[in-house]
Amino acid sequence: MDRPARYPATFMKLYNEHNPAPNPRRVRIFLAEKGISIPLVHVPMRQGAHKNPEFIVKNSLGQVPVLELDDGSTLSESIAICRYLEELHPEPALFGEDAWQRAQVEMWSRRIEFALMSRIGAVWVNTHKYTAHLGTQYKDFGEASRLRALKAMHWLNDEIGDREFLAGERYSMADIVALTTIDFATFIGIDMPPELTHLNAWHARVSARPSAAA
Amino acid sequence: MDRPARYPATFMKLYNEHNPAPNPRRVRIFLAEKGISIPLVHVPMRQGAHKNPEFIVKNSLGQVPVLELDDGSTLSESIAICRYLEELHPEPALFGEDAWQRAQVEMWSRRIEFALMSRIGAVWVNTHKYTAHLGTQYKDFGEASRLRALKAMHWLNDEIGDREFLAGERYSMADIVALTTIDFATFIGIDMPPELTHLNAWHARVSARPSAAA
Repeated sequence: MDRPARYPATFMKLYNEHNPAPNPRRVRIFLAEKGISIPLVHVPMRQGAHKNPEFIVKNSLGQVPVLELDDGSTLSESIAICRYLEELHPEPALFGEDAWQRAQVEMWSRRIEFALMSRIGAVWVNTHKYTAHLGTQYKDFGEASRLRALKAMHWLNDEIGDREFLAGERYSMADIVALTTIDFATFIGIDMPPELTHLNAWHARVSARPSAAA
Repeated sequence: MDRPARYPATFMKLYNEHNPAPNPRRVRIFLAEKGISIPLVHVPMRQGAHKNPEFIVKNSLGQVPVLELDDGSTLSESIAICRYLEELHPEPALFGEDAWQRAQVEMWSRRIEFALMSRIGAVWVNTHKYTAHLGTQYKDFGEASRLRALKAMHWLNDEIGDREFLAGERYSMADIVALTTIDFATFIGIDMPPELTHLNAWHARVSARPSAAA
């Protein structure tokens, strides 16, 4: 698995699904913020392409996104892909500018994933009509998860307060994780409550960046 | 939130819970592997100390571990704490030695958390007698999660194969995440199936390290 620390980005490609899938979108927004272009290969998930044998050899979990290098090496997990690209293209720093800031970005990315995205994912998998064909849906658990997701949005609203961005004064990976999470929640019918003024203002701020169209 | 990139470790303390809580143990194993000593402050979770107001100001999610600096700044999320300490004490590198290895460690840590730990956590919260007082348990979802956790152990066994460690030839944070996850699974009654020989051999290898006693 040894490989030079810097690797030409022009030889990579990114297996990707379009909106609203939140994980591939994280990488696209990250690329847009960095000004990096990587060829995208569309993996049509609704047709089950991520579970086909030719994709499973790239990621045995059958998930997108996957970054592939020209020697066939692959890397999955959106945050791992972005962290790798951050090392190849350090500016602008999206994982933080010093040890403490990097720790804050990591903390906030994880808080969003575990306190909010995990609940929204549980609603998606257990209550949504689009996922009903994938297996047993535990509806009562899914509905409880909806309430927990809303509770987490209230918590997040209080935490953001008057801060410009999630992990401090600079836009970071944590904002990307949160934006893709909130927008996916909207897609599946969990709207941000309008009374959460800090969260709504933050969302408007990060959505106004050109990268949000990615 | 600005702070020098390097900060004296002697001024930190770590809010901690004893075994078998997996997240605080991650940090203790990490410290043992690094040879770092940080004063531990016990937060007795069974008595609800992590939900008391004086703890909530340190982490509004009411979770351990939390790292506190001498100015009162706090950092939560086990992986964020370890990543911060890795920057202060780079050797031995537990998050990988170059960009590609660091990406592999991140990918594997996340795979364990999302494919395995999330299911084990769902069993714990939804089926275990120790968590019954915490809220509604969704037993059928919990039992389905048990089967998914076992399926993930089978997947992990195949992935490890004859590799020495999870992310390659060197012990890393990914091994720490997996060890604490597997041991927590055992604690709640989800044993590693004995026929998973690669997983069992890996577990024996990482458990033989002195750090595993942390």
